[in-house]
Amino acid sequence: MKILGIDPGLRTTGFGVITKQGNKLGYIASGTIKTPDADLPQRLKTILAGVSEIIRTYSPDCAAIEKVFVNVNPQSTLLLGQARGAAICALVSADLAVAEYTALQIKQAVTGHGRAAKQQIQDMVQRLLMLSGTPSTDAADALGVAICHAHSGEALSALGGLAPALTKKGVRVRRGRLIG
Amino acid sequence: MKILGIDPGLRTTGFGVITKQGNKLGYIASGTIKTPDADLPQRLKTILAGVSEIIRTYSPDCAAIEKVFVNVNPQSTLLLGQARGAAICALVSADLAVAEYTALQIKQAVTGHGRAAKQQIQDMVQRLLMLSGTPSTDAADALGVAICHAHSGEALSALGGLAPALTKKGVRVRRGRLIG
Repeated sequence: MKILGIDPGLRTTGFGVITKQGNKLGYIASGTIKTPDADLPQRLKTILAGVSEIIRTYSPDCAAIEKVFVNVNPQSTLLLGQARGAAICALVSADLAVAEYTALQIKQAVTGHGRAAKQQIQDMVQRLLMLSGTPSTDAADALGVAICHAHSGEALSALGGLAPALTKKGVRVRRGRLIG
Repeated sequence: MKILGIDPGLRTTGFGVITKQGNKLGYIASGTIKTPDADLPQRLKTILAGVSEIIRTYSPDCAAIEKVFVNVNPQSTLLLGQARGAAICALVSADLAVAEYTALQIKQAVTGHGRAAKQQIQDMVQRLLMLSGTPSTDAADALGVAICHAHSGEALSALGGLAPALTKKGVRVRRGRLIG
């Protein structure tokens, strides 16, 4: 199974593509889509076209995107919302199922605890996917969403109806593997 | 010139298509896109598909969309932002130039003052476009954006470099016509 992870943003949208075979995760690609210093419609067009191009290039089977947090500045929240909307549009246009995870869930899935720093996520993503170098923060976050989905999907299909209750209590993870 | 106006919303997105020939405005179509009670990606997909279908049906030359205001509830702001992002994606995907107007600008363009009630906008849209019935509030708002663009475009092309200064001072409108 090939999973596309997206970390949405108006200036920089991170993406990461991984494979999952049984319990084994593999790295395919990651990077960022940067928008030009133009008006909002043009920036959204860049995000839409960029994510669509990534889908055409890597043909993922499903997608996961980070749930963005509400900014202290409402205007920033509105802008981020529109960027996220554009990224989701590219995913659903390609008929991909889209899962959503909070930053807390992603941090738990990747590092085992919800208060991990950016650097810790980068380090754990590098180790989990056996990368030779450290990915950028945006790419690492996007790969983190994909890893989170790989493990959650595993948990959800294995646990069936029990999964929502477990998710509410918090999923237990050690070194990027579900142990709950 | 055929103008598509959009009033974005997560539950209901209003649309209106008008023509502009010289100073004469004509009505073509209006209505709403309603999203199902589903998860966010599915709702955004409905908005994207709905606006794209309207573009295919009416082949507008340009588009205008309302600038949404920031809600007191940040989560609502985030949701509205994503819905607006999806509508803009449909417009830019069809290579339409997208103009943005605030509710204040639209009210001024349609009714002549910025504190008009919903009912006044509906009444003025009905009169300006010589409709036999009163459009719904969402459709009236969308037709209002299109009317605003028809007049603003007129003002901008006629005034050239002076337009930004005039816009800052506020455009004077009487019964839906620019008189400044």
